[in-house]
Amino acid sequence: MTRTVLESKTKTHIIGFDRPFTVIGERINPTGRKKLAAEMKEYNFETVTADALAQAAAGAHMLDVNAGIPLANEPDILAKTIKLVQSLVDIPLCIDSSIVEALEQGLAAYEGRPLLNSVTGEEERLEVVLPLVKKYGCAVVGISNDETGISEDPDVRFEVAKKIVQHAADYGIPAHDIVIDPLVMPIGALGNAGVGALNLIRRLHDELKVNTTCGASNMSFGLPNRHSLNGAFLSMAVGAGMTSAIMNPLHEPEMHAIWGADVIAGHDKDCAAWIKRFREASAEGEAQGARGGRSTRRRRAAE
Amino acid sequence: MTRTVLESKTKTHIIGFDRPFTVIGERINPTGRKKLAAEMKEYNFETVTADALAQAAAGAHMLDVNAGIPLANEPDILAKTIKLVQSLVDIPLCIDSSIVEALEQGLAAYEGRPLLNSVTGEEERLEVVLPLVKKYGCAVVGISNDETGISEDPDVRFEVAKKIVQHAADYGIPAHDIVIDPLVMPIGALGNAGVGALNLIRRLHDELKVNTTCGASNMSFGLPNRHSLNGAFLSMAVGAGMTSAIMNPLHEPEMHAIWGADVIAGHDKDCAAWIKRFREASAEGEAQGARGGRSTRRRRAAE
Repeated sequence: MTRTVLESKTKTHIIGFDRPFTVIGERINPTGRKKLAAEMKEYNFETVTADALAQAAAGAHMLDVNAGIPLANEPDILAKTIKLVQSLVDIPLCIDSSIVEALEQGLAAYEGRPLLNSVTGEEERLEVVLPLVKKYGCAVVGISNDETGISEDPDVRFEVAKKIVQHAADYGIPAHDIVIDPLVMPIGALGNAGVGALNLIRRLHDELKVNTTCGASNMSFGLPNRHSLNGAFLSMAVGAGMTSAIMNPLHEPEMHAIWGADVIAGHDKDCAAWIKRFREASAEGEAQGARGGRSTRRRRAAE
Repeated sequence: MTRTVLESKTKTHIIGFDRPFTVIGERINPTGRKKLAAEMKEYNFETVTADALAQAAAGAHMLDVNAGIPLANEPDILAKTIKLVQSLVDIPLCIDSSIVEALEQGLAAYEGRPLLNSVTGEEERLEVVLPLVKKYGCAVVGISNDETGISEDPDVRFEVAKKIVQHAADYGIPAHDIVIDPLVMPIGALGNAGVGALNLIRRLHDELKVNTTCGASNMSFGLPNRHSLNGAFLSMAVGAGMTSAIMNPLHEPEMHAIWGADVIAGHDKDCAAWIKRFREASAEGEAQGARGGRSTRRRRAAE
């Protein structure tokens, strides 16, 4: 059973084949969030603080932290953001940057065992990021694209993943410390994106025996009712063996889809987490119904 | 590609490996519905009429019709219910009874090619139901239990399914006219019910190459937030190759889970059905948002 061990200041979290699905909160990322980018550039961490607390409260097991702001001192901002987030929530972080200097400062600032996000199959990238992974003894996300870009062929993406795992082995990094992102394509543009992703996830699980993660919401890009579609994909991905996703834990349909899939897949022993999450909501809903109260989100979930 | 062809008075519906998932409306069934049972016993079809129209409007591709009322003339009531429902909605029906005489009168009353529900792996049952299937040239649901009851072992249930298919072949009934119900167990009572069902569905799809159906909501029996859990199971079941379910099409979370899974599985070409269903809801939601209108179910679906 493949297990990737991550650590916060005092706690351990395991991404694993036999574990409940790991939700990695995606919110602390200024890409496409003007207000957050402007704040972080000025070392104002008001929104970062709110996002860290809200995501952890919503059930995120880890948080991704990205400080990719144009014309800013990304390495320094990333390191300070990491220190702040670690002071707020005691769950492991993903140190997320495309700039090696930022990854390194993030690693130096981090207390525990983080997930580094990311390395690709590009030779140049492998040669600079893998030594960092080795030096800091952390785990790493491996994205299945290389110098030729992102292949639309899932078999090519599998080969890139394999190459990352093999290169990592050369540095003494075991496969269980690599979490492969198979790269989810928008199904509105590419009709076989769903089947392709599911088959690739299954191969990564069965053949390469690695943990997997993805930006799940890419699947529904450009389509209406994205939350329900993401939810269906996430349930199916759990069925195919996916073990984590970088996503927004504040989106209830996706979280229900994952928690439900955990139950069905046998990763929520005795349905204990499911019952704990919803029994209270159910009792609350019944009480409201008896009082003739208005339907609420929580109550609707419990109907 | 396995296809089971069903017919209403004027239309054809296909349950198939490469088709959108077939939703069989479960509502016209007096089991556990006192009011409906009392009405049907008196040949009052008010609720039947409402249920037929509502389920078809909600997206059911077929309707199950059951008239199992204690101390009533089930064969006659079933035949009359079928005639009525066929006059209301032009979609194929499932003729559902445990009484052979009722199945026969239902078949005699039906115009088109129905799905007979059901035969089991019990010798006695096979010997009386299969000749009916042959005589009327219809399709049949095969339930994977036999004289020994329902096995908790999915491999035993697979063997029962195989036996049903083999017996049917002896009567000249092809495998593509048999829709196997793998029997879904409550996961609250049996921890491996989810993985067991998914593996069995996959074997029925890959090895026996038959269409499948089930009472999907059995999975969540006794647990809170059943709709979300059913939805997760249904998405995963589509991923494993399940092609239909007997279910309540008025439950939105389950329907979204199925329609989403159809998109991901590549069974909703160009996402056309998904876009048609939700683009309008999305535009409506935006308009309501602009007016500061209250959140509605449809709007929430489109967020």
